[in-house]
Amino acid sequence: MSTALSPLAPPGFPDMPPIAGVRLATAAAGIRYSGRTDVLLGLFDKGTTVAGVFTRSKCASAPVEWCRAKLGTGRARALVVNSGNANAFTGKTGRTATKLTADLAARACGCRPTEVFLASTGVIGEPLDAHRFEEVMDSLVAGARPNAWAEAARAIMTTDTFAKGATATARLGEATVTLNGIAKGAGMIAPDMATLLAFVFTDAPIAAPVLQTLIARGAVDSFNAVTVDGDTSTSDTLLAFASGEAASRGAPVITRATDRRLGAFRAALDALLRDLAEQIARDGEGARKLIEIIVEGATSKRSARRIALSIANSPLVKTAIGGEDANWGRVVMAVGKAGEPADRDRLSIWFGDIRVAHQGARDPAYHEDTVSAYMKRAEITVKVGLGLGSGRDRVLTCDLTKDYVAINGDYRS
Amino acid sequence: MSTALSPLAPPGFPDMPPIAGVRLATAAAGIRYSGRTDVLLGLFDKGTTVAGVFTRSKCASAPVEWCRAKLGTGRARALVVNSGNANAFTGKTGRTATKLTADLAARACGCRPTEVFLASTGVIGEPLDAHRFEEVMDSLVAGARPNAWAEAARAIMTTDTFAKGATATARLGEATVTLNGIAKGAGMIAPDMATLLAFVFTDAPIAAPVLQTLIARGAVDSFNAVTVDGDTSTSDTLLAFASGEAASRGAPVITRATDRRLGAFRAALDALLRDLAEQIARDGEGARKLIEIIVEGATSKRSARRIALSIANSPLVKTAIGGEDANWGRVVMAVGKAGEPADRDRLSIWFGDIRVAHQGARDPAYHEDTVSAYMKRAEITVKVGLGLGSGRDRVLTCDLTKDYVAINGDYRS
Repeated sequence: MSTALSPLAPPGFPDMPPIAGVRLATAAAGIRYSGRTDVLLGLFDKGTTVAGVFTRSKCASAPVEWCRAKLGTGRARALVVNSGNANAFTGKTGRTATKLTADLAARACGCRPTEVFLASTGVIGEPLDAHRFEEVMDSLVAGARPNAWAEAARAIMTTDTFAKGATATARLGEATVTLNGIAKGAGMIAPDMATLLAFVFTDAPIAAPVLQTLIARGAVDSFNAVTVDGDTSTSDTLLAFASGEAASRGAPVITRATDRRLGAFRAALDALLRDLAEQIARDGEGARKLIEIIVEGATSKRSARRIALSIANSPLVKTAIGGEDANWGRVVMAVGKAGEPADRDRLSIWFGDIRVAHQGARDPAYHEDTVSAYMKRAEITVKVGLGLGSGRDRVLTCDLTKDYVAINGDYRS
Repeated sequence: MSTALSPLAPPGFPDMPPIAGVRLATAAAGIRYSGRTDVLLGLFDKGTTVAGVFTRSKCASAPVEWCRAKLGTGRARALVVNSGNANAFTGKTGRTATKLTADLAARACGCRPTEVFLASTGVIGEPLDAHRFEEVMDSLVAGARPNAWAEAARAIMTTDTFAKGATATARLGEATVTLNGIAKGAGMIAPDMATLLAFVFTDAPIAAPVLQTLIARGAVDSFNAVTVDGDTSTSDTLLAFASGEAASRGAPVITRATDRRLGAFRAALDALLRDLAEQIARDGEGARKLIEIIVEGATSKRSARRIALSIANSPLVKTAIGGEDANWGRVVMAVGKAGEPADRDRLSIWFGDIRVAHQGARDPAYHEDTVSAYMKRAEITVKVGLGLGSGRDRVLTCDLTKDYVAINGDYRS
């Protein structure tokens, strides 16, 4: 397995401030990996609200089922995440493991098991030995601290080559609130959602139903607009936790999603989610190029999204871009196969600012040399104009390389 | 580009007999390749009927549009196929090229342009210089002969590593009729249909509407049940030509698809189409393993097909099998993402005869050694039992290897 840092990695992990009411700790429980941490514990003060968005897989993992069932109360006191084992397709054993994990954490934290949220990532189908958490739980609780963001992001990595984090602040009423996010994911990445675990923490006092609305909307153009390989995980989880501590500094408690005071917070949250999602694409397994697909002039945003995903998931488009070949014929192919309204004779295609195809044929004005130079860049934008309507969308993906095959040809063995 | 013979290739090109009323010729017109043939001319005696099934791409090639428009009469006298250039996304130039090609062939053969059928395969978006056909057309007509099947199959190859042909006979009334088929395709292969050109020829006297029904039905479980990379070509074409010459030997003229005398012919045609389709999968770009996906117990055949294609198109499943890893967790993932009815706790998965997962969890009875030995085979069967209904389907695909990436990362350049 290639473990070299992705050439598309950001310069470093961001400097993330503490969030009042949130503490983190990591440990090495030896679930699968040795010599690294593989468990993250998050502890939340009383009054913390929670919301979640999950995979649409029909074979969702046991932790996903656990979280869905526990979201109703909207209250969270703890988060337990492990890497190395997804606890997916583990049948009754899997359900027992989630219950045991929640019981262990609840006992150590002094909360109810229903206030413990869980996420697991790694191999599918192997039983998860939750007793391993027992050995580390007390020291996790004892060691939890407000500024362990980088350690937290590292503990949840699987084939990721870099830890993913993002931070933002926003005005909420008269107060400034903070949002921190961490994420993992590199393969099995596709809507809905990516194989992806993402956790967002804020001190803003946001009621659980409002938080739910915000992250469900925010996922649409972030995690659901990223694809690495078109494969959707059984474990995709986005959880948001709001401690509400900023209320003591004058932040208003938000109980309606339509509250106009939410504007800046929503914008900051959306940007944070997009930032984390882009980091996922930048760490796509074997990726050498970040690819932005823009579709304009579709009959609707939904249609534009489908066409953009058809392009982004096409192995032929992805291998061509990996080979620095502006093979726009394959883009035409991918538009054509999407099954959405398209008129060949109105279609235009750009690589970067270079229009290579116009009104259903090669653009006679473009020079192969110019586009070849562009294709050597690490970040490539492919834009398709359909000329039918005003539907527009954007998705991110990465190229398909021999390293992807190498990473995934011997992952389990 | 790798040009080594696929390790999954059949032992050789079949011995295909002449078909009365059908003659073939090939030439090197230098459309893109040098040192090889790239044009095929088929000549058909008067009375030959024709039927066709084409790509569902919204950006179909000019030859596909030509054929669709000309199928109405049900009559064919000539077929012109070229490799190296798909004449797709070539705008008005492309339409002009199809008309010129048909005019040239009609003049040389003494028929109407509307009786000339066309197919092109190769690079998308480059203008096709149809004048190149002018230089070779007369010699093609003069040289056409009844037993040029292997040459014909070779002339239409692009990234194929072997020529694809199949032959069969069937009783029709008191006569024995012959069916011959040739095909090409290795990448951009997915329903509907594969990047695929396939041509079937028979001396059976079958009316055009009947022939249409037969090949449309036959494509469902053959070419539409094969996927290499999930990418659908703009040029997919299956054409069938029936010279009717067997009528002189006592074969009845078939004018209704429900005619009971068609049974043996239909079975032979279906088997021939499946044979050609399997050869496409065996020549999947970079393929080292032929993979059969069987889905049983689905709520319908349609649902089983979707789940089977979800598995067959999953890069994670394909790379795992390429790595000889029985990573059934990825099969679970692909079932889950298909969006079709599935119940994790009823799901079972087999590799060959080895049941690796049962009722939503790893099958405790299976031994890793046994399944590892099985995974070393060149032909792998993955079977999924959903336990919901009686819907069953089967698709063929191949593994995803570094060679696929190599072949497609530098195809155009």
